[in-house]
Amino acid sequence: MPMIQTDAVVIGAGPVGLFQLFQLGLLGLQAHVVDALPEAGGQCVALYPDKPIYDIPGVPVCTGRQLTEQLLAQAAPFLHGSSNLHLNQQVESLRIDDAADAQAQPHAQARIHVHTSQGVHLLAKAVFIAAGAGAFVPRALPIPGLDASERLSNLHHHLPPPEQTAPWAGQHLVIAGGGDEALQAVLDVLASPQAQRPSRLSLLHRRDQFQADTALEQQVRLLIQQGQVQLVLGVPQGATQQDQALMELSLVNAEGTFALALDHLLVRLGLSPRLGPLTDWGLNLERKQVSVNPATFATNLPGVYAVGDINTYPGKKRLLLCGFHEATLAAHAAAHAIHPEAPQHLLYTTTSPLLHERLGLT
Amino acid sequence: MPMIQTDAVVIGAGPVGLFQLFQLGLLGLQAHVVDALPEAGGQCVALYPDKPIYDIPGVPVCTGRQLTEQLLAQAAPFLHGSSNLHLNQQVESLRIDDAADAQAQPHAQARIHVHTSQGVHLLAKAVFIAAGAGAFVPRALPIPGLDASERLSNLHHHLPPPEQTAPWAGQHLVIAGGGDEALQAVLDVLASPQAQRPSRLSLLHRRDQFQADTALEQQVRLLIQQGQVQLVLGVPQGATQQDQALMELSLVNAEGTFALALDHLLVRLGLSPRLGPLTDWGLNLERKQVSVNPATFATNLPGVYAVGDINTYPGKKRLLLCGFHEATLAAHAAAHAIHPEAPQHLLYTTTSPLLHERLGLT
Repeated sequence: MPMIQTDAVVIGAGPVGLFQLFQLGLLGLQAHVVDALPEAGGQCVALYPDKPIYDIPGVPVCTGRQLTEQLLAQAAPFLHGSSNLHLNQQVESLRIDDAADAQAQPHAQARIHVHTSQGVHLLAKAVFIAAGAGAFVPRALPIPGLDASERLSNLHHHLPPPEQTAPWAGQHLVIAGGGDEALQAVLDVLASPQAQRPSRLSLLHRRDQFQADTALEQQVRLLIQQGQVQLVLGVPQGATQQDQALMELSLVNAEGTFALALDHLLVRLGLSPRLGPLTDWGLNLERKQVSVNPATFATNLPGVYAVGDINTYPGKKRLLLCGFHEATLAAHAAAHAIHPEAPQHLLYTTTSPLLHERLGLT
Repeated sequence: MPMIQTDAVVIGAGPVGLFQLFQLGLLGLQAHVVDALPEAGGQCVALYPDKPIYDIPGVPVCTGRQLTEQLLAQAAPFLHGSSNLHLNQQVESLRIDDAADAQAQPHAQARIHVHTSQGVHLLAKAVFIAAGAGAFVPRALPIPGLDASERLSNLHHHLPPPEQTAPWAGQHLVIAGGGDEALQAVLDVLASPQAQRPSRLSLLHRRDQFQADTALEQQVRLLIQQGQVQLVLGVPQGATQQDQALMELSLVNAEGTFALALDHLLVRLGLSPRLGPLTDWGLNLERKQVSVNPATFATNLPGVYAVGDINTYPGKKRLLLCGFHEATLAAHAAAHAIHPEAPQHLLYTTTSPLLHERLGLT
């Protein structure tokens, strides 16, 4: 893939990352955004899309999904039809060119190489880490060899998009989990076209009790009663593999140990945030948070800023509205570092013709 | 008037002052808000009620008035039917009890007396200065004795509310000014019921050119052509007074000096922000801004915080969204000072039953 040169890279497409893109755009800086999840919104969409939020200033109430939609609409002038939004991938490495020079002129000279897990290579003058609690990755079954990064041809952690044929059509699919994600997956699999459905569907959970929405549980209980879903109770102890494929799980329950043969395993245990590779980039960390200067939200690495829940500084509160402030000051600090010759006075969106032009209003 | 004891006083009912009230309420602190203007909203309502704002996070566009309405709706659980909103008055004095003790225990012991220009006396544990560019007061004609605070029975700076009889009914009213405020006043006066209108209406401006909205100017020009309004061109040089009333203005223009006799004078030269009494309170000021600690937004005075456009600290940007962050951190700092024994962990409006109770949702 060719290298993409840009002013800035924003790591994280949660609310703060989206507002970072907006503020950079207002200042005339181009940015690319990278996120591990398949859609923008971060925790707001992954963990509480339908829950109300009451403390966004000027928004008496909104859900996580509504907030994300509003922030996407606000950042739309700088999203270029999402060509600068790189989803479903993590930033795997961050490397700063000319570190010695960069320390002499901390920001202006920063050339930062960013590589993602899908092979995208970005070269930027500034990087904004807006990674929240870390990248949200699917929780794996706690069995050696079954973590999400392991490549087994019949181990899945996501449902395929509706336009793709499910790999388990006509075969035995086991869905693992007892929460909303697993139960919703049962319904989604059975709602797919007949030809795409598995011939046999098992739901594997450690006990006969779910931690799920009541209505969702009622629907799945009915499917179990009707025999459309087989409920398997047991705790996985190990797995048998052959030719890069999973053959069976060994399970244990009150009655003893037994084997569950399967064609495909879909693990739906929810998402778990992981700091992941960024712990290796040389950032000053304090209890898993990145230390920043509260005047600029700059980290100890030249040209690298940290905003939102991932950073820490005296007085820090992990609130979205604080992240919006941090992204704004960080954008101004970076703009000044990249264009030290540009005028420093603050422009207002209410009155500035230049900002109106950048917002596409003229 | 009896003294009102409360947790906190917020000086300024602009967007940041309203959000300060909201954040204090979430933390279980009662607050009273004081503002010089006749309604909440500060600059947003006084200067650009209908202009669009594009950089409130999660609000792609709103006018100053819409933003104010949303912030009032958000703060409604803590507004108690506006009984704690003291409008049309400035804070004239701020006095801290037991200054020596207070320095030993900087915040917990703060007892702060606040007096307003309408005689309201508040005693609080914390004061939040959210006064923006200062109190908005009407600009006076630049003639000695005609400043807004002078008490002349027939000198006015505001239109009376619609339910009150205008003092100039059946008399000669002079409206001074050449901007939107003056021209709108001409229309408003002529739109009042016949019995309330002046018998004669003059518009006094220094030259035959207005700085006003085109449509507004066209309407007023038509009234002048029709003889309903007399346009007087001249620069005021002095005024004749008798028995606490203004008798005539002496004016000068290219043709010489002349006198304009009048029954009432309505000065509509717009609003001008004034720091006013707060420069006397012992606050550390830096170019008319109040210096604060960016971890708490505390000033040098015990129990006194400054948030929004009035404060300064390294990296400061005078943006509403920054003021919202500042109000939030200041509220947390004050809550900790007032209740040092209370648990420190952050509650979220999405999940906390206590916050839901305070918001009146349960």
